Amino acid sequence: MIPYQIIEKKSQGKSLSEAEISDFIKAYTDGTIPDYQMSALLMAIFIKGMDTEETLALTKTMLESGEQMDFSAASGFVADKHSTGGVGDKVSILLAPILAVLGIHVPMISGRGLGHSGGTLDKLESVPGFNVNLDSNTWYDLVLNQHVGLIGQTGNICPADKKIYSLRDVTATVRSIPLISASIMSKKIAEGIQGLVLDVKTGNGAFMQTLEDSRTLAKSLVAIGKGYGIKTTALITDMNQPLGYAIGNWFEMKESVLGLQGQGPADLMDVTYALGAEILRMAQPDLSQEAAIAMQEKTVSDGSAFEKLLKIVELQAGDPKVLEDLEAYPKAKFTKVITAPQSGYLAQIDTMALGFAGIQLGAGRRVVSDEINYSSGMYIHKKLGEKLEAGEEILTLYSNNEAALIEVADQMVSVFSYSDTSPEIPPLIVERIE
Amino acid sequence: MIPYQIIEKKSQGKSLSEAEISDFIKAYTDGTIPDYQMSALLMAIFIKGMDTEETLALTKTMLESGEQMDFSAASGFVADKHSTGGVGDKVSILLAPILAVLGIHVPMISGRGLGHSGGTLDKLESVPGFNVNLDSNTWYDLVLNQHVGLIGQTGNICPADKKIYSLRDVTATVRSIPLISASIMSKKIAEGIQGLVLDVKTGNGAFMQTLEDSRTLAKSLVAIGKGYGIKTTALITDMNQPLGYAIGNWFEMKESVLGLQGQGPADLMDVTYALGAEILRMAQPDLSQEAAIAMQEKTVSDGSAFEKLLKIVELQAGDPKVLEDLEAYPKAKFTKVITAPQSGYLAQIDTMALGFAGIQLGAGRRVVSDEINYSSGMYIHKKLGEKLEAGEEILTLYSNNEAALIEVADQMVSVFSYSDTSPEIPPLIVERIE
Repeated sequence: MIPYQIIEKKSQGKSLSEAEISDFIKAYTDGTIPDYQMSALLMAIFIKGMDTEETLALTKTMLESGEQMDFSAASGFVADKHSTGGVGDKVSILLAPILAVLGIHVPMISGRGLGHSGGTLDKLESVPGFNVNLDSNTWYDLVLNQHVGLIGQTGNICPADKKIYSLRDVTATVRSIPLISASIMSKKIAEGIQGLVLDVKTGNGAFMQTLEDSRTLAKSLVAIGKGYGIKTTALITDMNQPLGYAIGNWFEMKESVLGLQGQGPADLMDVTYALGAEILRMAQPDLSQEAAIAMQEKTVSDGSAFEKLLKIVELQAGDPKVLEDLEAYPKAKFTKVITAPQSGYLAQIDTMALGFAGIQLGAGRRVVSDEINYSSGMYIHKKLGEKLEAGEEILTLYSNNEAALIEVADQMVSVFSYSDTSPEIPPLIVERIE
Repeated sequence: MIPYQIIEKKSQGKSLSEAEISDFIKAYTDGTIPDYQMSALLMAIFIKGMDTEETLALTKTMLESGEQMDFSAASGFVADKHSTGGVGDKVSILLAPILAVLGIHVPMISGRGLGHSGGTLDKLESVPGFNVNLDSNTWYDLVLNQHVGLIGQTGNICPADKKIYSLRDVTATVRSIPLISASIMSKKIAEGIQGLVLDVKTGNGAFMQTLEDSRTLAKSLVAIGKGYGIKTTALITDMNQPLGYAIGNWFEMKESVLGLQGQGPADLMDVTYALGAEILRMAQPDLSQEAAIAMQEKTVSDGSAFEKLLKIVELQAGDPKVLEDLEAYPKAKFTKVITAPQSGYLAQIDTMALGFAGIQLGAGRRVVSDEINYSSGMYIHKKLGEKLEAGEEILTLYSNNEAALIEVADQMVSVFSYSDTSPEIPPLIVERIE
């Protein structure tokens, strides 16, 4: 294997063989191939793409670079949900306990905030003490006995992906469908699951902004999952506005708790139940969609899903008290209310700008060493299509950094657009790919 | 300047501003930007290209990263010739002394063998003692007083180009017209010349194999030269067969000496005189093409050009005796004669394969640490279109490495093609770009 020739071949748009991909990635992971050759190949892949077979080979190599879980000892169906990331997306925190109560084993490996989007791990860590860094054995036992364990990617899971991901992050090669597909799917397959539902976000707050790109990504992900014998479907869901009202780690945790207590925003609950229904119907193919949703609603109305969340928090060393007394949580020092400058229908929201604003307020990291303030973030008070009067509150910002708060408040002027007539609202669940 | 955003912009095929190019390259040269970000940008440039303004900005940044010579004290016209590289191309060794005799100052900075093509520095060093590593002052004095000095790129000339070139060499980003253009032209402009003729090779032994690519490169090079107020023209010349008969460092040195003694191959002399005429007519615009060629022929017939070569060799610490007694030079231990397997006209030569064969025989380096054997190489005995009988000699190989010799001999079967009818021969000088 001559790395130069493989880079050259891909730069000419030719397909690489499984052996070429596997040899290159292995040599990069063990340090034989330097970063600068890997980044040249990544850029060539970024621009020229990869076909289905190449993407499968890349997934396979990354998967086999590390440990793979085996949940064949589990009593029920083993499944997970993965979202491609958006603003206000806290579905995992609701869905994991709901599914666990319904007998699904959920070995969920989540990520941290990335770009403008939040991360499940950061949200969970807003609960004091919550430990997302369990060792494999402890996690395995939780998934087996409690039906759910919520952790981050360990060093043993897909180390090749971990190393390549860091390099993509600094070489502008993140938004590539084959690279995203292999990165997501290698980690999911390593979980040892039998079923997977993908929430592929589309719109101005998603990494894939056009429906066409989202659809291509969804198809790519589903094809890989099926290639590995995993029941896989994808829902393409709208991200032209935040999901729910809360943006920021503790705010999202709190909204999730409210959701599990029957007081969740309609859009958040609809997406959660729709994704959950996909998994429940994989586990039980004769189950109707209506029944799959009703089962989930019942775990909320009877309090069992919230009980399960409290149990997970406790078993993962978190303090469940903060979830039982939501108002006792520390507040941000400064708040600022944004009002509508004119009357009209809320016609557009620059969702990505909201995501980045959240980070500026302290809810995310601009560089790896940044510390998150869990009480920072924002609440949006209106959804697309709602009518506002001039001066009505549309957004409340929270931060411990007053200068950042003022700066963000200034930026918010251009985030919202209004119209005189009722605008067309994109559907929440855009498409189902199977 | 955020390196990530510049890489991203180019990967989307957008044009970079002069400030973006300059900031990025400067930060890379001083070590602020790591190799892996530079290689991502190089790959994006390689695939997406650069427009004329970007190429000029890149040239300017590389030029200004180092020392620039000032020959305004020279009595006559200051000019140079540069070839994009081929097999058997020893024109510089003939042309430098010819022009020097005719009053042109030639501050020639040459390169080493690259890929399948030989390098002027390696050929000069086949003369025992010849020193191509003169310091700037010594070189300056030679060019001023002797009209010619032959050196390699010093650390002070275009250090940015030097660093980027090493990276391109290992990331498969060499064959890019804007990157080649900026690399060549920054070094040529740094010589402080008033005139430049470019020999852009085209055909199966050239880096640019199609006429279209060669033409694009020639136009790019000429545009940059003119942008810097340098009189610049380019000749696109044929590289579908070696130039002359000799391939290999001492063999090419010897053929150059024979050329300066009036016994040179016709094609070699024609290309040399045509390139020389370009420079002479830049220096003296009222000179006719015929007169410009006749002047050069006279420096050969009266022995003055050969005397000048001897003088240069002596002043650059080389042993002129080897040039005065060509047959005394050490011979390679092993030789092998290749014969035509059939009768017919010589219709095609895989010129690049011949170049690589020369390297295998010991005439070049496969890796930087390889040592060259100056007596290794080959003589081709026929030109395209010549008629051969079956069994007639077509090539003689020379090497100190018998195993390599046998291996190369085996490969030579597929290098030559024959035809029953007289084939069409590509013109030697294909096109002139000004």
